Amino acid sequence: MRKYAVGVDIGGTSVKNGLFDAEGNLIEKWEIPTRKENGGGLIMKDVAEAIEKRLLDKGIKKQELLGVGVGVPGPVQTDGYVSLCPNLGWRDYNPDKVLSELLGGIPVKAGNDANVAALGEAFKGAAAGEDNVVMLTLGTGVGGGIIVDGKIVAGVHGAGGELGHIVVNPEEPLACNCGNHGCLEQYASATGVVRVARRLLNSSDEKSSLRGISELTAKQVFDEAKAGDVVAAKAVDTLCMYLGLASAHCALTIDPDAFVIGGGVSKAGEILTNGISSYFERFTHIIPKKAAFKLATLGNDAGIYGAAKLVL
Amino acid sequence: MRKYAVGVDIGGTSVKNGLFDAEGNLIEKWEIPTRKENGGGLIMKDVAEAIEKRLLDKGIKKQELLGVGVGVPGPVQTDGYVSLCPNLGWRDYNPDKVLSELLGGIPVKAGNDANVAALGEAFKGAAAGEDNVVMLTLGTGVGGGIIVDGKIVAGVHGAGGELGHIVVNPEEPLACNCGNHGCLEQYASATGVVRVARRLLNSSDEKSSLRGISELTAKQVFDEAKAGDVVAAKAVDTLCMYLGLASAHCALTIDPDAFVIGGGVSKAGEILTNGISSYFERFTHIIPKKAAFKLATLGNDAGIYGAAKLVL
Repeated sequence: MRKYAVGVDIGGTSVKNGLFDAEGNLIEKWEIPTRKENGGGLIMKDVAEAIEKRLLDKGIKKQELLGVGVGVPGPVQTDGYVSLCPNLGWRDYNPDKVLSELLGGIPVKAGNDANVAALGEAFKGAAAGEDNVVMLTLGTGVGGGIIVDGKIVAGVHGAGGELGHIVVNPEEPLACNCGNHGCLEQYASATGVVRVARRLLNSSDEKSSLRGISELTAKQVFDEAKAGDVVAAKAVDTLCMYLGLASAHCALTIDPDAFVIGGGVSKAGEILTNGISSYFERFTHIIPKKAAFKLATLGNDAGIYGAAKLVL
Repeated sequence: MRKYAVGVDIGGTSVKNGLFDAEGNLIEKWEIPTRKENGGGLIMKDVAEAIEKRLLDKGIKKQELLGVGVGVPGPVQTDGYVSLCPNLGWRDYNPDKVLSELLGGIPVKAGNDANVAALGEAFKGAAAGEDNVVMLTLGTGVGGGIIVDGKIVAGVHGAGGELGHIVVNPEEPLACNCGNHGCLEQYASATGVVRVARRLLNSSDEKSSLRGISELTAKQVFDEAKAGDVVAAKAVDTLCMYLGLASAHCALTIDPDAFVIGGGVSKAGEILTNGISSYFERFTHIIPKKAAFKLATLGNDAGIYGAAKLVL
């Protein structure tokens, strides 16, 4: 009898699903819309129906399914309990229990989506085969995931891997979305690097190719930095410095094999990993052998791979 | 048949040993000198002889011994291998293997002493019964230990819990012992708080009871801060701020139940835990429920308790 697992990655607009074999090879993937009405009460029903239909189509019996892993866009306690997930409307909800009942008792295990993506990259992505991995996801915000001994560190209060809110500059006058001042996210997200570039433009008369652009994007800042623009390069350097500093904090705490950089901003490529590494070296002077910095390779599929790994 | 364990904590001048029952209750403890000649090659022989003699005295058979745990003052890899331990003279040494052979095959497990002390406090000390604990040891330097899911996080390169070298102030002009600038240890150790106090005294004419003291100690800085001296209070506040910041970095990485503050400086008491907590609150704005800060309770015995726990 062959064995299978399903990985589910719940986003605010769509739910990604993947059918995997027992070795974690992706057999096929599909998406369904995320129906957030009724306090998110329909989401698990839709997921269960889609899984059952897919198993039927593929001629897979339920007893061949080892389990279903689920990535949730919010904090998940180790027993699967979700206190509050505004992105989905969930409150006092246990997706493990609900989905397992809908699927007739098949084991279900949920985790926070950033942590689950980190697990995916450590399982089949940039850090495949490594048991101690930190993932930094640089998008609109900055997310993080911590893998120690092959397992997600969710944290006692669900704040494990909340690396975007490490305070890297207590002197920052502007507030972060979280209300604090000087969080990593304020410099190292897509919006952060644009904000830093604008601040540099406003604080000097230095010539810059960025000056003509009205709706500045992170991609433009990186492209102009690569083309030699001094102001853009300074914004990228600030991002790399603070990412290097926060990564050093992680290394001096859990000392991983590798850091994986993902999210939209990671498309900038090696300018990012090289820049971060060089600051990381400086801020981890005491560690003789250093962790590697790698670009994520699974893209949007990291979540379904990591979710499947939760039950494999 | 009753079962026992021995916890061994190797220091630069003496080796502390404890005989424990299977529940981790200390039955008795003893010390032997640390003989560092011959590249530290005599230490394990002395430890083995002392253990065998103690078992004989107590009428305990070798098969009643579950194992021996060992705290080592340097980095230890997960397989027990020690690449270099200047404090003992060890180089390319495996204390697990050597001591186990000397004791006729009894299981031996070694760990870094700061990590082992953290395990001790999580086992029977300030954080007894908690599985996710960070310990900060404030002495001549600043040591750290990380416990996740009841286990030591030693780190892939042996740098897990090297919290004293988290860079909290990249602008610091003076170098740390490690060669870096702005490490936590430069502000939060016994020498650090004295250095900060001296710097404050030299940079202003503010009246201070510290001015008359020629050989200023950390204890005096704390005592004068408690007595209301403004300069001393500022030095203590700086120490608390940077400890709060570095603790927040840990919390946003692994999110523990509790932080335990140990080492000589921790004798200052609640002025320390209250001060650190208040900065920690500020720097962990995003975590709704916060970890507790507790003073270590096992003192110099934390090492033998943690070492015993390695094999219990």
